[in-house]
Amino acid sequence: MKALQYRTIGSAPEVVEIETPEPGPGQVRLKVTAAGVCHSDDFIMSLPEEHYVYALPQTLGHEGAGTVDKLGDGVAHLELGTSVAVYGPWGCGRCYECSKGSENYCTNAHEFGIRPPGLGSPGSMAEYMIVDSARHLVPLGDLDPVKNVSLTDAGLTPYHAIKGSLDKLHAGSTCVVIGVGGLGHVAVQLLRAMTPATVVALDISEEKLNLATDVGAQYTFPSEPGAVATVRDLTRGEGVNVVFDFVANQATMDLGHAMMRPQGDQVLVGVGAGVLPVGLTTGAMESAIRSPYWGSRPELIEVLDLARTSGINVHTEVYSLDNAPEAYAKLHRNEIMGRAVVVP
Amino acid sequence: MKALQYRTIGSAPEVVEIETPEPGPGQVRLKVTAAGVCHSDDFIMSLPEEHYVYALPQTLGHEGAGTVDKLGDGVAHLELGTSVAVYGPWGCGRCYECSKGSENYCTNAHEFGIRPPGLGSPGSMAEYMIVDSARHLVPLGDLDPVKNVSLTDAGLTPYHAIKGSLDKLHAGSTCVVIGVGGLGHVAVQLLRAMTPATVVALDISEEKLNLATDVGAQYTFPSEPGAVATVRDLTRGEGVNVVFDFVANQATMDLGHAMMRPQGDQVLVGVGAGVLPVGLTTGAMESAIRSPYWGSRPELIEVLDLARTSGINVHTEVYSLDNAPEAYAKLHRNEIMGRAVVVP
Amino acid sequence: MKALQYRTIGSAPEVVEIETPEPGPGQVRLKVTAAGVCHSDDFIMSLPEEHYVYALPQTLGHEGAGTVDKLGDGVAHLELGTSVAVYGPWGCGRCYECSKGSENYCTNAHEFGIRPPGLGSPGSMAEYMIVDSARHLVPLGDLDPVKNVSLTDAGLTPYHAIKGSLDKLHAGSTCVVIGVGGLGHVAVQLLRAMTPATVVALDISEEKLNLATDVGAQYTFPSEPGAVATVRDLTRGEGVNVVFDFVANQATMDLGHAMMRPQGDQVLVGVGAGVLPVGLTTGAMESAIRSPYWGSRPELIEVLDLARTSGINVHTEVYSLDNAPEAYAKLHRNEIMGRAVVVP
Amino acid sequence: MKALQYRTIGSAPEVVEIETPEPGPGQVRLKVTAAGVCHSDDFIMSLPEEHYVYALPQTLGHEGAGTVDKLGDGVAHLELGTSVAVYGPWGCGRCYECSKGSENYCTNAHEFGIRPPGLGSPGSMAEYMIVDSARHLVPLGDLDPVKNVSLTDAGLTPYHAIKGSLDKLHAGSTCVVIGVGGLGHVAVQLLRAMTPATVVALDISEEKLNLATDVGAQYTFPSEPGAVATVRDLTRGEGVNVVFDFVANQATMDLGHAMMRPQGDQVLVGVGAGVLPVGLTTGAMESAIRSPYWGSRPELIEVLDLARTSGINVHTEVYSLDNAPEAYAKLHRNEIMGRAVVVP
Repeated sequence: MKALQYRTIGSAPEVVEIETPEPGPGQVRLKVTAAGVCHSDDFIMSLPEEHYVYALPQTLGHEGAGTVDKLGDGVAHLELGTSVAVYGPWGCGRCYECSKGSENYCTNAHEFGIRPPGLGSPGSMAEYMIVDSARHLVPLGDLDPVKNVSLTDAGLTPYHAIKGSLDKLHAGSTCVVIGVGGLGHVAVQLLRAMTPATVVALDISEEKLNLATDVGAQYTFPSEPGAVATVRDLTRGEGVNVVFDFVANQATMDLGHAMMRPQGDQVLVGVGAGVLPVGLTTGAMESAIRSPYWGSRPELIEVLDLARTSGINVHTEVYSLDNAPEAYAKLHRNEIMGRAVVVP
Repeated sequence: MKALQYRTIGSAPEVVEIETPEPGPGQVRLKVTAAGVCHSDDFIMSLPEEHYVYALPQTLGHEGAGTVDKLGDGVAHLELGTSVAVYGPWGCGRCYECSKGSENYCTNAHEFGIRPPGLGSPGSMAEYMIVDSARHLVPLGDLDPVKNVSLTDAGLTPYHAIKGSLDKLHAGSTCVVIGVGGLGHVAVQLLRAMTPATVVALDISEEKLNLATDVGAQYTFPSEPGAVATVRDLTRGEGVNVVFDFVANQATMDLGHAMMRPQGDQVLVGVGAGVLPVGLTTGAMESAIRSPYWGSRPELIEVLDLARTSGINVHTEVYSLDNAPEAYAKLHRNEIMGRAVVVP
Repeated sequence: MKALQYRTIGSAPEVVEIETPEPGPGQVRLKVTAAGVCHSDDFIMSLPEEHYVYALPQTLGHEGAGTVDKLGDGVAHLELGTSVAVYGPWGCGRCYECSKGSENYCTNAHEFGIRPPGLGSPGSMAEYMIVDSARHLVPLGDLDPVKNVSLTDAGLTPYHAIKGSLDKLHAGSTCVVIGVGGLGHVAVQLLRAMTPATVVALDISEEKLNLATDVGAQYTFPSEPGAVATVRDLTRGEGVNVVFDFVANQATMDLGHAMMRPQGDQVLVGVGAGVLPVGLTTGAMESAIRSPYWGSRPELIEVLDLARTSGINVHTEVYSLDNAPEAYAKLHRNEIMGRAVVVP
Repeated sequence: MKALQYRTIGSAPEVVEIETPEPGPGQVRLKVTAAGVCHSDDFIMSLPEEHYVYALPQTLGHEGAGTVDKLGDGVAHLELGTSVAVYGPWGCGRCYECSKGSENYCTNAHEFGIRPPGLGSPGSMAEYMIVDSARHLVPLGDLDPVKNVSLTDAGLTPYHAIKGSLDKLHAGSTCVVIGVGGLGHVAVQLLRAMTPATVVALDISEEKLNLATDVGAQYTFPSEPGAVATVRDLTRGEGVNVVFDFVANQATMDLGHAMMRPQGDQVLVGVGAGVLPVGLTTGAMESAIRSPYWGSRPELIEVLDLARTSGINVHTEVYSLDNAPEAYAKLHRNEIMGRAVVVP
């Protein structure tokens, strides 16, 4: 079968022909229907050899959807042909975190050598993929795999971030989304569907601010220091309840920090790792800072239910597997609006 | 000043001339701008003498709005002319429940003789009313008092009911509103604004089902035994997560009970008091039944914020104080669509 | 191997010799170290043929512990000889409820024919048992299997019941445990370890009230109508925050209902199914009634952790497999103090 | 009457004779029975003139208890002689935060010029004090004012900090208390009474570690870098669920940060304001950092209830008002074990 693999440190990913895999006991083989292209792939392929941690070659793709193609021994009650999405942050299934479905925080994964597809295990950028357990499949039903595959990360990650601050997003609250990219433009939609909070979007690109308005943001402003005063005015001087920062570099973190209201949440979803002063006399009292990672199994089920009932819409650009390297090249140049999806 | 009073058990309320009251220390006098007409007034005026518990004459009106007209001694930081809504379920302000703002569950109110306006204390159906403490006033800002006065009960009561089940109203959940009257038609709007749940409305009146659709219900069905199967089908056989029953007679309670999913909530807001079998082998496992009463102070602030940002719309019919008896007569004949509001 | 089976409707269970089972793909065989004797087994064996739902013969035992003896295909990272407890309410592992670990509310179990061990599947009252998935095993570590096996039901069920009311069990709250039997005497210990609530125990047996005191109840009273006034006095007239009713017949349900405080929880864990009036004008305002069932996977892990750190102590009487029929006979005569445990 | 006042920047506080105050409308005069000596008083008196924000002279004391001595106009249902504790972080009573009892986060206090007693308003270090509203009084009942006055800050502050992390302090969790001083030694007791978490205490003083053991800490270790490995070992390598840092200087913050488990809470209660790196690739995933401030009204009621039922014990040294300056001098030299209390 064809697969898109990262084969040489520092080189572009390549389309190669490899053997079609067979599912072992408990495993399921999918015929891939869609695979999402994500910034974190690009981040990993930009790492120098001493920081790169996975084996090579690596079949890419941690956002995946497919149809059930073949069952390993012991897998029952799963019909061939069922359209499914793949829950990506695989865990052991048994530890305390996994018992709650928080496999993204599995305490055994490292020791047991369990890795997400596309991030250690063979991923979804191929004609077929192996999923290690039927519990990592969520039926898509009528949902279009191409339009919705990215919800497995670009939907699930902001969904999880929002869930963790849901108590603070009550009626009368205001939240800010910084960065209206693949995740941010879904976050705006999720916030509108899930909460009564007023949603403010910040970005440095006017085009992305327009996208934010299209998908439901009530206010949009350029992401620059002046936004602090503008947003404070909107909130009668009190500051915002929650900031979701999908960039999380020092500039956006400082911006978010300056906007917080007491008891608010500053949620860092981007890959930046700035430095912030924290303590009783610094910033808004009892505002909490955290950096969530991906999401849980029940949350993915909820996200897909939400797509079904509330019409969450991921803006997608579609590529064939042969053209997938081009998608990554555009992503690297920051030229994708919304999300690129590969259809093998 | 003019006031609408219930003066004789079993008779209609009357418009009378009484002395304009003066605010004591800590109290505030409002010039009333709007007063809501509620089923519970009618319920109380229908009680035989042996069950009627308030003193006579009783100035009616537990939904009230006004402008700050005169301050009692010790009231500061409150400008004359400010447009406010009145939080109705007054408590002592000091007990554990009041300390959290849950004055609707004050543990001292009975002993201290503290009664809500219109339900023991002189109410809002008058040119002026006394509010016992500035903490029971919520600034309306730009909100129209006539359109929004009913949010103090017809908004607050369903809001509180919904808040108590918010965890169960996640993405992918389904809830049912039984009875699209004064409270029910607001409940539908609140559910859509506050949660991602799918909202189903049931009523025996086609006109009220149309109102439900207009205000956002995704599905509407006649309130009859056949609705159980229809709603179960909608939920892939699993039943509904939460039922809000604004009628709560035996028929609607049986209907709700038959629709519940395990771990669901059956919330009885209507004044009915039926009988339901409860226990491990009866009905959906771990579904909980409760009957909430009115709401808390922070919840009223949230409701009014929600009206400001999400456009909660109470359907209102406006009456003068002189015509208020007619409004009660129509209410008694069940001829009001939405809510009647008296403007003195 | 030897097994204890229920073979003939209405007869006592019998010790028989059957074939030692082999684990299929994904399954695990345990060498049983302990099996708990539960009232619900007795309840099921008392059912007339028309209500009995499982196939015969039925190997009994839904509380089980053992050592890992043999692995089915595809089971990895599990060492032979590991001492484990068995999570009993098996589900499909994939539905929304199972994704959160709430397999006790699996929405597919019925359709897929998945049954708990001892309640449809072969149970723990045998020398060996098959567990359908490694995720249903929780390592016991240093915990004695005989002393702790009953925590899988007699611990997990009250733990889950308490978890659902945890918000109401704050400092200054009071709760009541009705029925100090197998579950009730563990509930008292869990409440003391997990919450700052004052714990009151009610029972009709003085001996069981003494047990309640021994395991930490601050107050004990005979379970009779006079307890209502006594408990109200203890709570300054306000009533109790939560009642856990491990009997749940009409008498105890009426007792609990009469003690509730507004916004309290009446939690029915016993198998009774009485009838209670519910509604706005009946009983304590907004007090909720629910009947939980068993518990979730993460909760079992927590219960066993609690046993490790807080010394939860199940009172046990030990029987050999040959003498197991006698244990059931004593249970039926209500002569067991705490819990009977079978050691094959 | 006598009062202890801070009168000159940089000088020690002085005992002076001032006029006994009269309560205005809505206010209550207390005859002071106890007043707590707190580090934050010392912190404020150490500030240079350009950073000192209150008027002079300042009667000290933000921890206060007394008996109701005289009522202002409009105060009812409060008996003279009642023994009460004073809720210190006074707010406006009307804003959203105050409506929930979170007066510590009042959004109007600054604008309205409302200041806590001892921190802007005249405090409890006097024979009499004025409390601005009856809602700021919590009846002590049988509780000894001298032993319990410090619960209004040294109890309430850690209580509030713990409440904010209560979900993470489940069975099987581990928490760390850094700094076993006035607040820390109460925190250990609160954690044991309120949660099933294992409590580890760290301090640089062996004497304070002994105190921690006495009040219930299961483990104690010197507060030094080696504690990270020791504590990780205790938690099977996973790290701790919650760190409560009552010192919060750079050393303790770094220590806490290195111990965190994913999804944990690092709670900074001390006055330090270090700098920590935060972001997706820094430290334990999704661990949250926050700095809470004092506590809410319902929390103070809960703390005092807890003292009543669970015997929270503040270690106190008692001083007369005349000797109060000496108490502050010892505090400044860090020579107080537990809490100093002034009895006028």
